[in-house]
Amino acid sequence: MRDTTVPDDRAALDEALRGALARADLVFISGGLGPTEDDLTREVVAALAGRGIVMHEPSRRTLQERFARTGRTLDPIRERQTLIVEGAEALPNSVGAAPGARLEWNGKVLFMLPGPPHEFGAVLDEHVMPWLIAQRGGAQALRERVLMVNGLGESDIVQRFVEAGWPLPGIDTAYCAAAGRVEIRLHARELVSDEQLDEAAARAAVALGEYVYAHERIHLEHLIGTLLTRREQTLATAESCTGGLIGERLTRVHGSSHYYLGGVIAYADRIKSSILGVSEDVLMEHGAVSKETVCRMADGVRALYGADYGLAVTGIAGPSGGTADKPVGTVYIAVSEARTTHVEKYIFPGDRELIREWTCQSAMNLLRRSIGMRD
Amino acid sequence: MRDTTVPDDRAALDEALRGALARADLVFISGGLGPTEDDLTREVVAALAGRGIVMHEPSRRTLQERFARTGRTLDPIRERQTLIVEGAEALPNSVGAAPGARLEWNGKVLFMLPGPPHEFGAVLDEHVMPWLIAQRGGAQALRERVLMVNGLGESDIVQRFVEAGWPLPGIDTAYCAAAGRVEIRLHARELVSDEQLDEAAARAAVALGEYVYAHERIHLEHLIGTLLTRREQTLATAESCTGGLIGERLTRVHGSSHYYLGGVIAYADRIKSSILGVSEDVLMEHGAVSKETVCRMADGVRALYGADYGLAVTGIAGPSGGTADKPVGTVYIAVSEARTTHVEKYIFPGDRELIREWTCQSAMNLLRRSIGMRD
Repeated sequence: MRDTTVPDDRAALDEALRGALARADLVFISGGLGPTEDDLTREVVAALAGRGIVMHEPSRRTLQERFARTGRTLDPIRERQTLIVEGAEALPNSVGAAPGARLEWNGKVLFMLPGPPHEFGAVLDEHVMPWLIAQRGGAQALRERVLMVNGLGESDIVQRFVEAGWPLPGIDTAYCAAAGRVEIRLHARELVSDEQLDEAAARAAVALGEYVYAHERIHLEHLIGTLLTRREQTLATAESCTGGLIGERLTRVHGSSHYYLGGVIAYADRIKSSILGVSEDVLMEHGAVSKETVCRMADGVRALYGADYGLAVTGIAGPSGGTADKPVGTVYIAVSEARTTHVEKYIFPGDRELIREWTCQSAMNLLRRSIGMRD
Repeated sequence: MRDTTVPDDRAALDEALRGALARADLVFISGGLGPTEDDLTREVVAALAGRGIVMHEPSRRTLQERFARTGRTLDPIRERQTLIVEGAEALPNSVGAAPGARLEWNGKVLFMLPGPPHEFGAVLDEHVMPWLIAQRGGAQALRERVLMVNGLGESDIVQRFVEAGWPLPGIDTAYCAAAGRVEIRLHARELVSDEQLDEAAARAAVALGEYVYAHERIHLEHLIGTLLTRREQTLATAESCTGGLIGERLTRVHGSSHYYLGGVIAYADRIKSSILGVSEDVLMEHGAVSKETVCRMADGVRALYGADYGLAVTGIAGPSGGTADKPVGTVYIAVSEARTTHVEKYIFPGDRELIREWTCQSAMNLLRRSIGMRD
């Protein structure tokens, strides 16, 4: 497995493509299918395979109809995007203009896929994955178990694993860390049975305890959606240092309007009192970044929106604004419910962007734990 | 220039590294400097260069002090991250544990950089770029002109350029498109003078007109920050379908608290009336996604926050919720000022994520144009 990125240059693309075809039977190219002069994928593949380039009529018609619906005419420049290499199978692009294509030739399979990430993902999901699974007779390609962890760093996890007897024979452990979240994948080598892999995953789960929030590749916003939908409960947010990030993450989920009512971005301190009802006294005495303020923000937004849960964050994302007492990275998070309010203090590492990411991830995790605690 | 990505595998890493060193004098590796068993960069480089691996004491001490400040002890697993290849120059990592390193050997220069994007960026900005610029005697590496465009697609731009006489001799035009935004770079080849490059940029600016929002690589949220700061004016947002994305983008800018007061995420329709004051009659008669509703949302949030500008969006991000009259992608955006409210209707392409991105980008652009109109 290897991924090579080259500039939009004929010679570089040709050389990279020859190298990939020499190493592998299955080659994916993404990008270079657009309408501009720097889009060279079709031409380079056609030259290498000794093929022509032809118009893919169904894609052209689809694009033409899409244009007609908004009163525009398809011109020759945009039409170029529906050309494909002769003899290739077109892979319709449901979210963009340029179709992907699969070319089989000399015992190799070459996929040409659009470059914009959402178009690449759509063609991958709709055409490439089904083809790959069919090639394997429907079997899973990889034997792996996943653990999604929140609130522990990569080093903390390794330490716990070493204490639990890692490395385990025949099991490879891979880590992918983002702000506040680590995805752990346990891969079984050939001689390891499915039962041994399950046992390894169970040992990992014990070692990491409550920090594991899922056993599949799922994001917290989806898990929260499932929990709130099942309970028919609603949520409102009050954000200071994250500026809307938590709301944005929650509403990435289709159907989130069933449980997420909305929220208040209280970036200026006076908004914390005028809209969320944090008293001037509390702000004066404890400051905008304090346990007292965040609890009142959470209670205030829950009351204002008439929600079952109020989730609030306030903190110092930096780079300036820190003090000896409250350094950059200091964040308070609160979850307000009818009978109780949970609050936690954190000091997050990193720069402004990372502190905001950690805050968002940890806020969703505190909410998840609060919802879970009710059972 | 080439970028190669390989799995955390000794043989694959070794082969890719040998290939890169055969092709280039300057090689960058990112990733594989962490504390886990799949972090192999140091070992593979050391083996290839016939070097040992040594502890970088200053980095170890810094990490130790950082741990001490939060009452923790540096253990052998985490300490592993401060090892570097013998003879390499360490590049301190201001936002993470593992330092980068620069190894000069056999006339080649090899940079080892941390993998997490924010750490990679920090070491790049603080150590690699200054080194590169020093190597070139402080000169700019690339002669280019940038145009940032909002509201035109790549194909629209190409069409305008063709009509304006593109391609221009000696000038390469490159495009990088994201939702609602295209970055255009004009590169001068060797025989083209700076004056000719400026002339090309001027022709591009004329061809694209008001769609050009900047002549440097700047995001709209920074431009808005500059405009509002200069005018000492404030802004509040009311978001429905974007769920906080606009607030999140605006607050990525350090110092945004000087002009951005915050906003209301009005995801549920009843919040649009209870908090923003959109009357039930307007919602009933025109719907939550309408010109009338978005104008009242913008006016409402401006009044509620006491801001100079109110920016509001409402739309159908999908995948469900569309009708024949208002298909998925229908979005209304309004900017409210003391004396007037600007409103625009859009039908954006793509999936949920893309529609939200387009909405955010177009909202910031309508705001920018509204602020500009005041002069």
